[in-house]
Amino acid sequence: MRKNLGVIPAVFPMPVLMIGTYDENGVVDVMNAAWGQICEMDRVMVCLSPEHKTTDNIRKIKAFTVGIADLPHMKEADFFGIATGNRMSDKFERTGFTAEKSTFVNAPVIAEFPVTMECELLEQVSTEFLTDVFVGKIVNVTAREEVLDDKGEIDASKLQALIYDPFRKDYYVTGQRVGRAWSEGKPLMRQK
Amino acid sequence: MRKNLGVIPAVFPMPVLMIGTYDENGVVDVMNAAWGQICEMDRVMVCLSPEHKTTDNIRKIKAFTVGIADLPHMKEADFFGIATGNRMSDKFERTGFTAEKSTFVNAPVIAEFPVTMECELLEQVSTEFLTDVFVGKIVNVTAREEVLDDKGEIDASKLQALIYDPFRKDYYVTGQRVGRAWSEGKPLMRQK
Repeated sequence: MRKNLGVIPAVFPMPVLMIGTYDENGVVDVMNAAWGQICEMDRVMVCLSPEHKTTDNIRKIKAFTVGIADLPHMKEADFFGIATGNRMSDKFERTGFTAEKSTFVNAPVIAEFPVTMECELLEQVSTEFLTDVFVGKIVNVTAREEVLDDKGEIDASKLQALIYDPFRKDYYVTGQRVGRAWSEGKPLMRQK
Repeated sequence: MRKNLGVIPAVFPMPVLMIGTYDENGVVDVMNAAWGQICEMDRVMVCLSPEHKTTDNIRKIKAFTVGIADLPHMKEADFFGIATGNRMSDKFERTGFTAEKSTFVNAPVIAEFPVTMECELLEQVSTEFLTDVFVGKIVNVTAREEVLDDKGEIDASKLQALIYDPFRKDYYVTGQRVGRAWSEGKPLMRQK
């Protein structure tokens, strides 16, 4: 039996993305955003409403980073979603986190987050029904060595990546690896 | 220490979305898509390249559903990403799954998936840098009773929702609940 729940945002899991920017004076801001996704192999999109400091910064500086929040930094990641850089001048400093300028774009890489995309702004998209979408070109991805496997690739089981739950507004962590994509379904390809 | 990994799609976790459509003859198709996200409280966007049967169907019928794939149906969910409705006429039938027409839009709700958004196509967006994005208005969300809590809301811990890992192309499941959003960071709001 199914129940109708009305109109709710029901994508799950959602990521906990850490959008890193500089303002025109080089002050670091980081914002917590769940509404972001890859939209091409070398592009990422984030939906950011106009009132954010981050939105201002991206418009002016035309670059941003997208980090993945992890369990050891849940407190700070959540804080980045509560506080606003518009009214709290020491927002980033309060966390004690370390920002280093990306070697590829004019945006900060936050040392504490395990994986970060370094992006140039390609376009701000606002159509009739899709508004305030920022499309970034992924110029590089930087990762902490601890989350890499012996081939130098990111091992998701080491990330402790946070998941945002839009239903009850909770955080979860990633659980077990359960299968391989483009493989688990193969028995149904042969059947007939 | 950090390593540079070059240009890779590095959003994690990604969802495993089941895009359900009818063609002009009422034949059901379901496609596996990771590149989708909420873009407003009542809107969802999915990036779908033009060659898919699903893309054709959405263009013609102007409606689709977005289901959340879960662990008990991993084999079928993965199959929906391997097979194409363009060349396999019994694609949906092979799974033995049950499709019921949505009471809200002209698209199928797949009974096996725990949570499904029922959507009307609002717009197909193609700009210079953001192409083949379909924006849907969420008209209703339908959920299996087993995943609801005693208030009738979706309990993410009951979903067994799949996660797509873009790094190694694996599936994971959701792990433990670890905290509350807009709450874990409050101590840093008071500090000063």
